[in-house]
Amino acid sequence: MKLPQTVSLDPKKNELVIIDQTLLPNELKLLRLSDLHGICDAIRKLKVRGAPAIGVAAAIGLYCLAERFEDVKEEGFLYSLEKHAELIGSIRPTAKNLKWALQRMLDCANANVGKGIPAILKSLRKCAMLIKRQDISVCKKIGKFGSGLLNNGDTVMTVCNAGALAAVEYGTALAPVYVSAEDGKNVSVYALETRPLLQGARLTAFELTKNGIDTTVICDNMAASVLASGKIKAVFVGCDRVAANGDTANKIGTYMLAVLANHFGVPFYVCAPYSTIDFDSPTGDDIVIEQRSADEVRSYWYANPMITDKAKIYNPAFDVTPAALITAFITEKGIKPPKKLKRLK
Amino acid sequence: MKLPQTVSLDPKKNELVIIDQTLLPNELKLLRLSDLHGICDAIRKLKVRGAPAIGVAAAIGLYCLAERFEDVKEEGFLYSLEKHAELIGSIRPTAKNLKWALQRMLDCANANVGKGIPAILKSLRKCAMLIKRQDISVCKKIGKFGSGLLNNGDTVMTVCNAGALAAVEYGTALAPVYVSAEDGKNVSVYALETRPLLQGARLTAFELTKNGIDTTVICDNMAASVLASGKIKAVFVGCDRVAANGDTANKIGTYMLAVLANHFGVPFYVCAPYSTIDFDSPTGDDIVIEQRSADEVRSYWYANPMITDKAKIYNPAFDVTPAALITAFITEKGIKPPKKLKRLK
Repeated sequence: MKLPQTVSLDPKKNELVIIDQTLLPNELKLLRLSDLHGICDAIRKLKVRGAPAIGVAAAIGLYCLAERFEDVKEEGFLYSLEKHAELIGSIRPTAKNLKWALQRMLDCANANVGKGIPAILKSLRKCAMLIKRQDISVCKKIGKFGSGLLNNGDTVMTVCNAGALAAVEYGTALAPVYVSAEDGKNVSVYALETRPLLQGARLTAFELTKNGIDTTVICDNMAASVLASGKIKAVFVGCDRVAANGDTANKIGTYMLAVLANHFGVPFYVCAPYSTIDFDSPTGDDIVIEQRSADEVRSYWYANPMITDKAKIYNPAFDVTPAALITAFITEKGIKPPKKLKRLK
Repeated sequence: MKLPQTVSLDPKKNELVIIDQTLLPNELKLLRLSDLHGICDAIRKLKVRGAPAIGVAAAIGLYCLAERFEDVKEEGFLYSLEKHAELIGSIRPTAKNLKWALQRMLDCANANVGKGIPAILKSLRKCAMLIKRQDISVCKKIGKFGSGLLNNGDTVMTVCNAGALAAVEYGTALAPVYVSAEDGKNVSVYALETRPLLQGARLTAFELTKNGIDTTVICDNMAASVLASGKIKAVFVGCDRVAANGDTANKIGTYMLAVLANHFGVPFYVCAPYSTIDFDSPTGDDIVIEQRSADEVRSYWYANPMITDKAKIYNPAFDVTPAALITAFITEKGIKPPKKLKRLK
């Protein structure tokens, strides 16, 4: 991958290091974070985003914060850890990985109670690094399974950014493209720009072209035209939370794309690490959808506001695609149709 | 209507007067045009846009130019008229009204050959004013037929701007909403922002709220979520050219919206003056789709470019919705399903 890792730990300074994604594609800048405000702000303002990446960032971030706790007794230390995890975990409600990664960190600390703060810190660091390594390996496996669906010369479509910038490396939905390229297959990508925050335009086009992948950006409303042309072999998307029945919350626009893919007979794949599957939510109705500020639609990137302030704005960050529209999930355990998703023992 | 007319003639100075729509919603400014460059530039840069409005603007513009021709013989005058009409007519290929209005002007001039230039000019002025009056009356009739489909409390969805700003007054797709409001019915509108040029965000929200209509703007990719919620009674869109079989070219995103409306069981209406129906094009395959500059997607409204210049951009201005997805056309002659469109005698 021809980019620094999206999320990492500076092992000497114990700082969380992230690519500031709000500056892309115009500036590639690494941010170093070690205080609560900075870490929360980075997640809230989407300086780091993508379900896998915010999980890893939260784990490493929590460890960096814990290194700076002033508590001298274990009890106080664990209380601080829990409170900080709670705060970070509440910033973005939809993605499952955020709370999942933080819970793994808390479980790890609790498993080491009684060994003293230095030992707990050591185990926390190990746990955060494990979450990061597993993210890379899960993404590579998704890439390997997904690339099996692609032939030389194929073109795929994707929405938002579920690539290297949404994880540590490779990503989920773009991993099949990267693995195909490594195997010498020529795969092109149509990227939906993904309003309002343009993750497709800014991030997906940036990371794909950096890695030599032929990329065409379209506005979200052009997807029907392109799918109707017959040139798209498959649609690959990421996900923020998958319910037990296969209903999938992902970036707003995914539902639209699934309906269109279905209409035009193009297979629609959700690339999903098992950590994003929420077996405690029976269906998509149980998934909380984050509503974000109207300014993201009205004025965020623009030189001037684009909508009169007399008009209302509705800005859901995600939608829930019903399982019936999903051809299959590409997971680290293989390719599974919605009905074959099973809780791992 | 609480806005100046979108297109008009200054009858004393013989100038074409238009609202500069590229400045909306932040500035409401009238432009006065009387030279070829200015008129062509206004149509090319979408200072005036919307199929009915560019038809009327071209007719009035051609008359204003003709008033300034230096030809002293009828033959030279008619030659100049034809050449100017050809130039203006070639700026935007998809909308039928542009060429239709210019052809009416040429036919009118030709019908008055031999009466001398002042008489031809008088007839051209009359013809342009007739095209304008007819536009208003056609839109009001579309509004009347369309409002018959709406009840107090209903909410409709629309894409792009097919309102007052796309015609002289009322518009096509928004006319049913305005007529409903005049009749005391409370109708709300969800407006798709309509990337890349944001006609829904900038123009539809502006004119609807100016006229007291409850309006919510969403990004194009949020349409599936809103339609899935069940709150939309009907989708109303305009059109740039309708083929004889009912296939409809309209702003990019219309095809997407038609597939979604179909999927969610929401009726999908195309509001179409008969002048936009092209009985010489048997199907949508015969309609030329205008491709526009990549910069509209990459950087046009933004403070910074949003897409790396390593990525390609595909920017079709229109798409063609197959007749099978269209519930009915709302025309000045009544509401007709695609199969009932017939050439008027």
